[in-house]
Amino acid sequence: MKTSRRKFLSSAVLAGGASALMPLKSCYSENNKGTGYPDYTKLDLARDQPVLKRELFTTPVIIDKLELLRDRENFICRVRSKDGAEGVSIGHPFLGNHGYPMFERSLHRYFIDQDARDLDTMVFNAVEKNIKKQGIPLCIQIATIEFAILDMLGNIAGVPVGKLIGGIHHSEISIYLGTQIWEMRNLEPEESLELLAKDVEETSARAVKLRAGSGDNLGVNNEIVPGRTEKLCKMAREKFGDEMVMMIDGNGTYSPDEAIRLGRFLEEMNFHFYEEPVPWDWYEEQARVGNALSIALAGGDVEFGMHAFRWLIAHDAFDVLMPDTFYFGGMIRSMRVARMAEVAGKVISPHMSGGGLGFLYMLHMVSSCSNAGKYHEFKMFETRDANGTIIPIQSKTEPFSSKDGNVSVPTGSGLGVHIDPAYIKTHKVIYG
Amino acid sequence: MKTSRRKFLSSAVLAGGASALMPLKSCYSENNKGTGYPDYTKLDLARDQPVLKRELFTTPVIIDKLELLRDRENFICRVRSKDGAEGVSIGHPFLGNHGYPMFERSLHRYFIDQDARDLDTMVFNAVEKNIKKQGIPLCIQIATIEFAILDMLGNIAGVPVGKLIGGIHHSEISIYLGTQIWEMRNLEPEESLELLAKDVEETSARAVKLRAGSGDNLGVNNEIVPGRTEKLCKMAREKFGDEMVMMIDGNGTYSPDEAIRLGRFLEEMNFHFYEEPVPWDWYEEQARVGNALSIALAGGDVEFGMHAFRWLIAHDAFDVLMPDTFYFGGMIRSMRVARMAEVAGKVISPHMSGGGLGFLYMLHMVSSCSNAGKYHEFKMFETRDANGTIIPIQSKTEPFSSKDGNVSVPTGSGLGVHIDPAYIKTHKVIYG
Repeated sequence: MKTSRRKFLSSAVLAGGASALMPLKSCYSENNKGTGYPDYTKLDLARDQPVLKRELFTTPVIIDKLELLRDRENFICRVRSKDGAEGVSIGHPFLGNHGYPMFERSLHRYFIDQDARDLDTMVFNAVEKNIKKQGIPLCIQIATIEFAILDMLGNIAGVPVGKLIGGIHHSEISIYLGTQIWEMRNLEPEESLELLAKDVEETSARAVKLRAGSGDNLGVNNEIVPGRTEKLCKMAREKFGDEMVMMIDGNGTYSPDEAIRLGRFLEEMNFHFYEEPVPWDWYEEQARVGNALSIALAGGDVEFGMHAFRWLIAHDAFDVLMPDTFYFGGMIRSMRVARMAEVAGKVISPHMSGGGLGFLYMLHMVSSCSNAGKYHEFKMFETRDANGTIIPIQSKTEPFSSKDGNVSVPTGSGLGVHIDPAYIKTHKVIYG
Repeated sequence: MKTSRRKFLSSAVLAGGASALMPLKSCYSENNKGTGYPDYTKLDLARDQPVLKRELFTTPVIIDKLELLRDRENFICRVRSKDGAEGVSIGHPFLGNHGYPMFERSLHRYFIDQDARDLDTMVFNAVEKNIKKQGIPLCIQIATIEFAILDMLGNIAGVPVGKLIGGIHHSEISIYLGTQIWEMRNLEPEESLELLAKDVEETSARAVKLRAGSGDNLGVNNEIVPGRTEKLCKMAREKFGDEMVMMIDGNGTYSPDEAIRLGRFLEEMNFHFYEEPVPWDWYEEQARVGNALSIALAGGDVEFGMHAFRWLIAHDAFDVLMPDTFYFGGMIRSMRVARMAEVAGKVISPHMSGGGLGFLYMLHMVSSCSNAGKYHEFKMFETRDANGTIIPIQSKTEPFSSKDGNVSVPTGSGLGVHIDPAYIKTHKVIYG
């Protein structure tokens, strides 16, 4: 069953050589021998490999300044090395304003005056030494800092961020359309699909994601209108044809039994993957659903725990792992999930929020994953920040656009973009 | 094995009648029938019972004002009803300053203009509708709001908080000494125990908690000095005698194998419970350790997920459940854990941070739990706030003190304390 769940997901993995593909269960023999629990040896080995490619830097890169800038609800992180190299990241477009005091009170100390080549360790400590402050708001601040440091390191080495954390495995990313979340649930199905069709036309995307149920994350089977989910799926298949790749996201609507029932329907409808049918932290239930179905299961978007991903992978709960580069605390940690997924024959497809520079971080992350899924979440090139201002960025190389549903990863150094200095100047340094 | 793990924990539970004591496994038959997973029916029923006793209020209590006050790093929540009743809580003594922007941006809306008699629902929504902001900093803000509203409701009904959420099952709480965390690990064992002996003398406590390992929450068996943990335990038993009840907290130091090895030693040393041997989110490993040992396992102090506690209880990972009233988002949610624990024959013993009004919230919470453990964490009557200022409070009834290791629960209305208005006045309203 696992094999059939995997085979549609990533040709890259299937071509990736036997060792990376060894089924996890073949190594369930050492650590937990005789205990009835999985052996995690191979997952742990994969997770714990160094991520940042230190060998690209021959001398220390001491972090001399690490600043948090603010303009009303929006935040920017700027980092400067002793030698004058700079990096800049834009914070999360609607959640950066929730946990920003943690930048000063619990995070700055783990980065300032350190050698940026030790970024793996700095990120690890920022997460693991702050467990009493744990959660998504903390991870968002860590990610914002990490993105700025990666931008600086890329600028120093003259390479894009993907090359720093895993090498460039993909120069173009195939997208699936993940916008219209509210509309996909609350309008008449005809209207929902009409809006989606406009995005398809604009991007030539070959994959779209629908939304199932009410998305209330309660696991009690609330539908906005009874029967709407199946109706929407059927109409979408009819409207977009058999060639369109379709996925669907339950956002935690269902109980395990109902999730399995709907999953069988989605199998019949030839859906590509089935995301988060049960609430995000119903791990055991998710494993039950995953093991009962042949359709690929996807999830992990609001997860911030490394150990949780390890469990979800080992127990075959998901086939497509979806850490959010912000919510999960950055690209280095997300890469560790990708590597665990890889040795288990699974793929990665990061979640992204709409707005800000989400799509940019997603592109770099995916470019560096050998086991990236076939299609990746995309919410258009909309870059409104937390104040509703469009962030004025330009790719250092070519303009951002989607051709035949593919978006090129910026090849310029660091994050590969030029941000209008006048925009940054509207923000004042509040710490660092 | 489970029976022997339980029997020392709570005479109250053992006297509590057969129905409350029915072993959980006897009901593993309905919901998940034939799936190999536990049946959670009884746990879910217990969890979902109303907590706030609405029947104490015959007319609506509309929340007219809900304010966040700030003096530098310290926060206070003040609530006022349309009829002029007031409640006040003091925020967390060192973490309230991490997530306070969430009070305004994501929480205030769930409480303002609502009928405070619907507090169960308001708290539920504040947690469940904010999953993208989830974590301890969010829960701390929710708890601070809830404590203020409970204070107000208690003032209206003329009853202490415990009566609002479960009735008064205990008017005196037996404490265990949980201070000296750093000292318990980093000094020579002789010196560590000398400091503990001073606290014992001051409080006449009959129970003390030691600390095992490095407490780094990494699960890789780091000890400050090799062999120190066993040495400390032996010396403590010798110093305090066989009558002293002793528990120990690993703070996530150990791998499962090492946790089990140390657990067997603790069984020989007749320890009362063994807290958090493996990292907090190693659920499966915790269950493995719990099921391998006869000593009672305790934990859950940095947990903020209801579903996680449900799993941990059903899988017999812990015998003593330790939600922190702040980190877990308040007393109502903690009561839901207590009730799940009760139907599984387990006990509750809330975690508390030192400083602030932690001990006060702990006392009220424990007073209202029929299945409270025998001993509860206590870090002295120290009430320094986030600025290092001693919070000037007086019990409305009798002074706070420990007699023979017992502390009386305040019997005055609400939280049962009078806070010097001059202290509150040093704080300015920043929202609400």
